[in-house]
Amino acid sequence: MLTPSDKALVPFVSVDHMMKLIHHIGLEDMLGGLAAYIEADFKRWESFDKTPRVASHSDKGVIELMPTSDGADYGFKYVNGHPSNTKDGLQTVTAFGLLADVASGYPVLLTEMTLLTALRTAATSALVARLLAPKGAHVMAMIGNGAQSEFQSLAMKAIAGVDEVRLYDIDPAATAKCARNLAGSGLKVVPCDSAEEAMLGAQIITTCTADKQYATILTDNMVGSGVHINAIGGDCPGKTELAPAILHRAGIFVEFPEQTRIEGEIQQLDPHHPVTEIWQVLTGQAQGRSDDRQITLFDSVGFAIEDFSALRFVRDRIEGTDFYLPLDLLADPDDPRDLFGMLQRARG
Amino acid sequence: MLTPSDKALVPFVSVDHMMKLIHHIGLEDMLGGLAAYIEADFKRWESFDKTPRVASHSDKGVIELMPTSDGADYGFKYVNGHPSNTKDGLQTVTAFGLLADVASGYPVLLTEMTLLTALRTAATSALVARLLAPKGAHVMAMIGNGAQSEFQSLAMKAIAGVDEVRLYDIDPAATAKCARNLAGSGLKVVPCDSAEEAMLGAQIITTCTADKQYATILTDNMVGSGVHINAIGGDCPGKTELAPAILHRAGIFVEFPEQTRIEGEIQQLDPHHPVTEIWQVLTGQAQGRSDDRQITLFDSVGFAIEDFSALRFVRDRIEGTDFYLPLDLLADPDDPRDLFGMLQRARG
Repeated sequence: MLTPSDKALVPFVSVDHMMKLIHHIGLEDMLGGLAAYIEADFKRWESFDKTPRVASHSDKGVIELMPTSDGADYGFKYVNGHPSNTKDGLQTVTAFGLLADVASGYPVLLTEMTLLTALRTAATSALVARLLAPKGAHVMAMIGNGAQSEFQSLAMKAIAGVDEVRLYDIDPAATAKCARNLAGSGLKVVPCDSAEEAMLGAQIITTCTADKQYATILTDNMVGSGVHINAIGGDCPGKTELAPAILHRAGIFVEFPEQTRIEGEIQQLDPHHPVTEIWQVLTGQAQGRSDDRQITLFDSVGFAIEDFSALRFVRDRIEGTDFYLPLDLLADPDDPRDLFGMLQRARG
Repeated sequence: MLTPSDKALVPFVSVDHMMKLIHHIGLEDMLGGLAAYIEADFKRWESFDKTPRVASHSDKGVIELMPTSDGADYGFKYVNGHPSNTKDGLQTVTAFGLLADVASGYPVLLTEMTLLTALRTAATSALVARLLAPKGAHVMAMIGNGAQSEFQSLAMKAIAGVDEVRLYDIDPAATAKCARNLAGSGLKVVPCDSAEEAMLGAQIITTCTADKQYATILTDNMVGSGVHINAIGGDCPGKTELAPAILHRAGIFVEFPEQTRIEGEIQQLDPHHPVTEIWQVLTGQAQGRSDDRQITLFDSVGFAIEDFSALRFVRDRIEGTDFYLPLDLLADPDDPRDLFGMLQRARG
């Protein structure tokens, strides 16, 4: 085998490496670190090249590419969403991502992003909840206890001051799994028999369910004043979780309006319905929560810049560790114009 | 280390594996095989989801994602184009690609595509030359003797009946390299001191130069009647190789007009200038060459379906071989809803 030069080798973080990296840093510290990177990138929002994700839809699901660049680094994520995968023993969502150097176009990191996406989504949710939830919020209702639920709960603990999570899922086995996983985390965990019960005393309500349909996980009369809703599951055309009446009562906060109007809860509203961009609240250009009684809604769909922040974080943290493998991904002939000569010499 | 299940493992073809695969199959046979896959996919053009590539431009170059799908498989390629890379000892163009199963969204192949792109570009050029070049064409002028030139020459030999290549480059060292690499290939190789000399007696003229500018590699008076021009190098906004007057004299054939009008030679023309789509010639829906005296021009920019064909070819040919590595790219918990449990258990 030929030994490729350094330029040909792209650091690759496998699922196994990512799990080791998370445990090495500590899950809550990593969630906090990701939130700090995401906050820093949201605060320089205008320096990014932004484009709605490029989606390929089929009757089974969607495959998306989410690219962005800040002029120095370029990142993209490949992610699928296939609700019916679960019945075949597969993940609904899997992902991987890549970071590249804009000046040369050469990739500098390839990494699994199924785990990393769960972490960056939770970190974003908690960053926004810290910004928008009513003062003193410390109880979260977690409606939908699937693959995201523990990450959401722990990020809210690490970043947004939550000390109690109240769990509900239409499948009690999912709730039991989530409660079991969160045992010993320091959170008070309360399994509930209904969404209404889960919402008792909660100042933060997170919805994260998987069915692809216009569902009504929350109806209007279930939601009182003075709460923050973190709506994760309504994230593609035809998939929403909230009754439109809730949207009309809420102050609505979004990542990137052009994308959220297509994919988020607000696909149910008039395309000119007012929304506030999170980055503008973070930079002080727009108001966050107006008063203690307001319902704030983070209509989260996941944006490419969050993945970019996560890729930057991983690149910075694997340096000097063993949590990656150098991958022979790029052809690197001694003379760049002599690709053919490299191939010929490989015949030996 | 945990042992991921089969579903989590994505076959990865490194540069080293790709070179071994090419030599295992034989370069000319592989070029022919790729051309057959590309022809088959062009003939079912209407079954593909087509979109212009998603480009991120900087002052140094461009990074592009090129996705497509036929409803069963989904493929995309990451490719950069950085003309100034050569002076830093890097490739102008590097690429990798991925094939995924549309029904589950799970990737089924990750592969280097720097080499594979050179091969599929050459296979496409030769497939089109076989279709459009004047009857009995056997001499090619190869103008621009960089990384693509040997692949172009051998594909024209394997697929389009070329037995003589006449080489010219502004850098004589590039011509010498190309001539050296083609020695023993069975082609008659004639190094030339000018583009005009290279074109003497040639029925096929391939232009493949790298400068990002509106260059004039061919002027109007250099091109006689009854030739086929295979224009490879004009492939992004602001980068062309032919004088507009040549375009006005030629029958112009393209891959995907929506993309070629932005990136190809025809960016110099009125946006309604008539062009013929290659797939329509292949299916008999449109005429190819009209007569022996016509100038046919393949304004090649490279389209996602060619990469898709190449990815399909590699997937089919690595089965049962050792020319890939199973990559732990996808998280695959026993219970798909228990991503967190998988992470916890990895702590051991």
